[in-house]
Amino acid sequence: MVRWEPGTQERLHRAALELFATRGYEETTAAEIAQSVGLTERTFFRHFADKREVLFHGQQLFVQAFVEGVDTAPPAAAPIEVVAAALRSAAAFFPDERRSRSRARQSVIDRNPALQERELHKLAILATALAEAFRARGVGEPAATLAADSGVTVFMIAFTQWIREGEERSLSDIAAGVLGELRALTGGSSAPAA
Amino acid sequence: MVRWEPGTQERLHRAALELFATRGYEETTAAEIAQSVGLTERTFFRHFADKREVLFHGQQLFVQAFVEGVDTAPPAAAPIEVVAAALRSAAAFFPDERRSRSRARQSVIDRNPALQERELHKLAILATALAEAFRARGVGEPAATLAADSGVTVFMIAFTQWIREGEERSLSDIAAGVLGELRALTGGSSAPAA
Repeated sequence: MVRWEPGTQERLHRAALELFATRGYEETTAAEIAQSVGLTERTFFRHFADKREVLFHGQQLFVQAFVEGVDTAPPAAAPIEVVAAALRSAAAFFPDERRSRSRARQSVIDRNPALQERELHKLAILATALAEAFRARGVGEPAATLAADSGVTVFMIAFTQWIREGEERSLSDIAAGVLGELRALTGGSSAPAA
Repeated sequence: MVRWEPGTQERLHRAALELFATRGYEETTAAEIAQSVGLTERTFFRHFADKREVLFHGQQLFVQAFVEGVDTAPPAAAPIEVVAAALRSAAAFFPDERRSRSRARQSVIDRNPALQERELHKLAILATALAEAFRARGVGEPAATLAADSGVTVFMIAFTQWIREGEERSLSDIAAGVLGELRALTGGSSAPAA
């Protein structure tokens, strides 16, 4: 009989990030992750398909956080306001106490091209799900895809800033600022102001 | 002595797309591509590192087309106008006579997840190069990255439309329309108009 120990997945997750950071991702095995917190390799594989999945196991919840922001925005909200709502909803998924762990994860990914490709794939899945959520609100194409891709772009720029050493603003505040910059950028033109 | 036959790379490229489409990408070997146009496998490998590179060998020129549009835009142009210039420059890389070949290439990629990841990687390289070109113009962050990513997003939406069966507009015209939609989307708000 398998005893499900609460917190085991969490302990494996922390241990993996620690080993990936100190020893390197390629050089760390699932067995070593498990052993470092007194667990067996078998226990590791009850929680994660492989060591890569330690870095990506929250993907569905991550996508869901964005999509819920779109789904629950007021029916009359303009698409750009729905993007803002999706960003607020996603930011709530990354409270400040998660910042140092997010930074550690990103630093592992930044040093490994295969993980970067996996991360791009995750963002592509996010963009597809978001565009679908916009279409479900009655937003046509290409506006739905533009709104979705813009949301992902703003999120990634904000996230990169959020995990920078010394940054203290919340992800939500940073994302709101970057969205404002996008609006200023795309609203800018050489036409005389009215 | 190796005799360099003009047009050989072109013949291999056409033959590869034909075989990828009819037989499947995974099922086609470099030797078969070469043989189908009366060439040897050795000749194939003088032109391409592997069969995947047949689909990606124009990548540098593709990125260069965008970057040149940024570099040659008038110094006083607003960032959004520079995005428009980059899109026109990139569109010139895809004249209408290239449409059916671009469609064939995309259809091979759409059916193969590993090729899709490689394509995402190509677009990430493009976005990085474009952001660098914007920063070289004196555009700060996050505006440079926003401009670059928005340009890539608009391009990909326009490109997807351009290769659709029955579509007859030029890529340049479609991209200008999609950029207009982005501006309408991000300019839209519930705030009363001035």
